[in-house]
Amino acid sequence: MKVGFIGFGEVASTLSKGLIDNGVEVYTSLEGRSIKTCSLAKEMCINICKDYKEVAVISDIIISAVVPAKAVEVAREIGEYSNAVYVDINNVSPKTVKKALSYIKNHKTVDAAIIGSIKRNGIKVQIITSGKSATQFAKLKDYGMNIKIIGSEIGQASTLKMLRSSYTKGISALLFESLYTAYKMDLDNEFLKCLELTECPGFRESAISRIISSGFHADRRAQEMEEVLEMMSDYDNPFISRATAEFFKTLSKKLDKIDKKFEDYKNLFEKISD
Amino acid sequence: MKVGFIGFGEVASTLSKGLIDNGVEVYTSLEGRSIKTCSLAKEMCINICKDYKEVAVISDIIISAVVPAKAVEVAREIGEYSNAVYVDINNVSPKTVKKALSYIKNHKTVDAAIIGSIKRNGIKVQIITSGKSATQFAKLKDYGMNIKIIGSEIGQASTLKMLRSSYTKGISALLFESLYTAYKMDLDNEFLKCLELTECPGFRESAISRIISSGFHADRRAQEMEEVLEMMSDYDNPFISRATAEFFKTLSKKLDKIDKKFEDYKNLFEKISD
Repeated sequence: MKVGFIGFGEVASTLSKGLIDNGVEVYTSLEGRSIKTCSLAKEMCINICKDYKEVAVISDIIISAVVPAKAVEVAREIGEYSNAVYVDINNVSPKTVKKALSYIKNHKTVDAAIIGSIKRNGIKVQIITSGKSATQFAKLKDYGMNIKIIGSEIGQASTLKMLRSSYTKGISALLFESLYTAYKMDLDNEFLKCLELTECPGFRESAISRIISSGFHADRRAQEMEEVLEMMSDYDNPFISRATAEFFKTLSKKLDKIDKKFEDYKNLFEKISD
Repeated sequence: MKVGFIGFGEVASTLSKGLIDNGVEVYTSLEGRSIKTCSLAKEMCINICKDYKEVAVISDIIISAVVPAKAVEVAREIGEYSNAVYVDINNVSPKTVKKALSYIKNHKTVDAAIIGSIKRNGIKVQIITSGKSATQFAKLKDYGMNIKIIGSEIGQASTLKMLRSSYTKGISALLFESLYTAYKMDLDNEFLKCLELTECPGFRESAISRIISSGFHADRRAQEMEEVLEMMSDYDNPFISRATAEFFKTLSKKLDKIDKKFEDYKNLFEKISD
């Protein structure tokens, strides 16, 4: 089994490692990559091709794992050279997945999405997938991957990922907003204790990690929420998702300025991290 | 120890039962109550006074447990007749608690709030409390109650309850909105499964119960959220709480009409309850 990766960031390198451990031949190209990435790929016994076209020609399964903005571009670049199953595992909207996969001339396409943390779970991270060629991609279960087919149409996996995103980002915004209000009233610790009474074990750690990571990634989340919002608006009036998008947009702007508000957030982060 | 209840709904009758089992003398008045309530009170060996003034005069601790709209009125009615500690355990805003307790002439006042389900937990339900006389109220811990002092000022307990409310109602609205969108895409079951992967055990049951109960109590929640919103707006711009209030207001209006949308909700409720 030959698996080619387009892109070699955290997702590609983590999956590569697991697949190689399970006897898969892994291919990628390192054109334009950093020295650090190049030496990582070489240490891991990955087969290095001169460009992505070569990766496309040689592989049985191609996994596109690039930055969201590149998903369509790389598909267009190699779409006509390959006879492989092409899997788009990028963090993009169903619309973008469909556009990217429209460039794959052999029509052996798969929509895939990572659920949960690849850092924490490695190759065992849950991957949901849809599309007519999903069964071929799912053969990688025999090589250590945790793939679940959820449907036969392109767009279903990425839709589910976006719906999940609306939920998890909504929780983060809600927690941040209510804890920040509690903090302004000097009731933050009591508030967390009060929620702990009825929420599940591990609630406090998970809440604090969600709040702090909201602070760090507010800008990216605001952008991701715009895509979620666009998708949800086709079905209903998404009050909470719209508010979540606005929340992260405003938070990101506030955190850009070193003012009183920012100091307040910093103090809150420090207080709850103790 | 003599404890008097103003009002005899679910909260008062549940706490009464537990207190009597622990040797407390419980007093109330049944003026204007239903036959069912009267016979319940009599079966439970509660001492029946001719009116709330008599309850106020006789008790060491008075617990006001009435419908929110009556909290101020009952305090005004009996405020000058009592030497007891007066506990407002009603589901009202800090502002309303302060107004009610301003009528208690002896100033032995306590702000209290129930956290979680009294139906499920009985007398062991967590009660948070604040105010200068909270320590006297907390003596009822010796008689089976689960009371936690969180501060010395009137308003702190009810503030915490409202903050908690903003969180729990926000989660319900978020779950409802995202699951409904998933349902419109025929992905509801996959969506719940997908969240179950990373949420804690029991997530599905709790989510379903939150969604269905949102449908049943949309109108009451919309009203409660208005009070939460008013309180939070004094501290920050509450995006998510405002959206939660709007969500429940709209849901309540939709559920009032027997139209296509309502049918859709009903189908969703039936589907997830299976």
